[in-house]
Amino acid sequence: MTLPKQVKIVEVGPRDGLQNEPQLVSAEVKIGLVERLAEAGLPMIEAASFVSPKWVPQMATSTDVLKGIRRKPGVVYSALTPNLKGLEAAIAAGADEVAVFGAASESFTQKNINCSVAESIDRFVPVIDEAKKHGLRVRTYLSTAVGCPYEGDISPIAVRDLAKTLWQIGCYEISLGDTVGVGTPGKIKAMIEAVLEVVPVHALAAHFHDTYGQALANIYAALECGINIVDSSIAGLGGCPYAKGASGNVATEDVLYMLNGLGIETGVDMSKLLEASRYISSALDRKPASKVACALS
Amino acid sequence: MTLPKQVKIVEVGPRDGLQNEPQLVSAEVKIGLVERLAEAGLPMIEAASFVSPKWVPQMATSTDVLKGIRRKPGVVYSALTPNLKGLEAAIAAGADEVAVFGAASESFTQKNINCSVAESIDRFVPVIDEAKKHGLRVRTYLSTAVGCPYEGDISPIAVRDLAKTLWQIGCYEISLGDTVGVGTPGKIKAMIEAVLEVVPVHALAAHFHDTYGQALANIYAALECGINIVDSSIAGLGGCPYAKGASGNVATEDVLYMLNGLGIETGVDMSKLLEASRYISSALDRKPASKVACALS
Repeated sequence: MTLPKQVKIVEVGPRDGLQNEPQLVSAEVKIGLVERLAEAGLPMIEAASFVSPKWVPQMATSTDVLKGIRRKPGVVYSALTPNLKGLEAAIAAGADEVAVFGAASESFTQKNINCSVAESIDRFVPVIDEAKKHGLRVRTYLSTAVGCPYEGDISPIAVRDLAKTLWQIGCYEISLGDTVGVGTPGKIKAMIEAVLEVVPVHALAAHFHDTYGQALANIYAALECGINIVDSSIAGLGGCPYAKGASGNVATEDVLYMLNGLGIETGVDMSKLLEASRYISSALDRKPASKVACALS
Repeated sequence: MTLPKQVKIVEVGPRDGLQNEPQLVSAEVKIGLVERLAEAGLPMIEAASFVSPKWVPQMATSTDVLKGIRRKPGVVYSALTPNLKGLEAAIAAGADEVAVFGAASESFTQKNINCSVAESIDRFVPVIDEAKKHGLRVRTYLSTAVGCPYEGDISPIAVRDLAKTLWQIGCYEISLGDTVGVGTPGKIKAMIEAVLEVVPVHALAAHFHDTYGQALANIYAALECGINIVDSSIAGLGGCPYAKGASGNVATEDVLYMLNGLGIETGVDMSKLLEASRYISSALDRKPASKVACALS
């Protein structure tokens, strides 16, 4: 079992993180955050989401954010695009890459995007085809990959089969999400091993939430499976660990601390990352949900 | 790599945890805590410390605690005993087992117990010999086993050599402490693998602090090395993750969540454990430093 030598950290704080924060954050603050994250060396930043502002008011500023950021060469600025309308807006705003959002659980898919898992695939196909025409790669989130708030445990076979379909319809990267944070290292390994039967390891990302404090142990288990892409959220944006039912993404600072300790290269500078963490925590007027940020600040 | 089927969780909250809490806690509350921890199924509870109350006022109630608890058959109630005077007091109070406290770092040992590492061994020998005369087993803490606040990284060889000596002088269990929480899974494995050259795996415990959020990942790495004894602290007592320089023990609730998920038997009941967590958190008037407790309460 050899750990990867390099890991790509995908920063999801400005989108997946802020989207789940109750306070509305201005485009200006988001731009300041994205620029600081790029400055810290993060190679890919999910900066926007082109969903209806009716459903996700926090993301209503997405065009302003993508158009407003000073771009750092080499950094990929991506956006979530649930449909063709969102894709058009993302392209117009200058997204480098787009992502679609699916789930392994039927109940979660119904409640979250109001269709079956099979129907969600039918919706992704035209988005992926159109994105490719514009030269954009498409990432996909495969959420509830371990457990579902409605169905409980999700079978690794269901995750494998969905991952296979997502790969076949042309997603270049599949982010395996433990959306409710119920995974533990053994379940994570069983799920990833099933997916590895149908998708190459370089196309898989670990996207784990820290609801029960398991995210870093789960990321370590994913690294042991060869995964070398990890999603995380600056300052643990997306859920305060001290609030009931918190389900924040794992904090980028804590992930980087582990990867640094393991001698795995990321290209990310801890002190600059902590600046970005302080910046957004100050804007939200609260302490970061990151133990590293709390200990080193 | 096979994980252990069973793990013994050693609950250190009433001693190592509370000792590092600024608020003085009454003997009555400590007794209530220890009884609830036993009720939850924890097999071993470090309940007291016979050090000078001048240095550690929180532990001045140790005799009252050990004499006051309603004993649950089969549970080991242990006490820290730095010297013969402490050992006598622990025996008089009815401790089932005692522990001594050493460190791999010379600087830490000097600052913490005012002697060299070699001198600390000379102090342990009479305590161990006397304890054995009374039929008591002696555990030892080998702290700063990964890093030291004064010296930085600690060499696995230094830890191995000290562990060998502690084993030779008659300690039956050596608790390997990442006292400052700077370990990451690779460093933990390197340290444990070095120690395994000289001490059998059944005699080693993982005692990790969560300062940088790494404790559960490190415990998982220790399990992969075959370690099947884990120290933890109810409600993460011993350091608030939201305070600067926090260095709490990993929370027992979060450890249990991971072990349950891995299918590893502990004999500990989560709902009763959460009762103990709520009890002490309420007594200290603060939220538990455990993500599981926050999410499930």
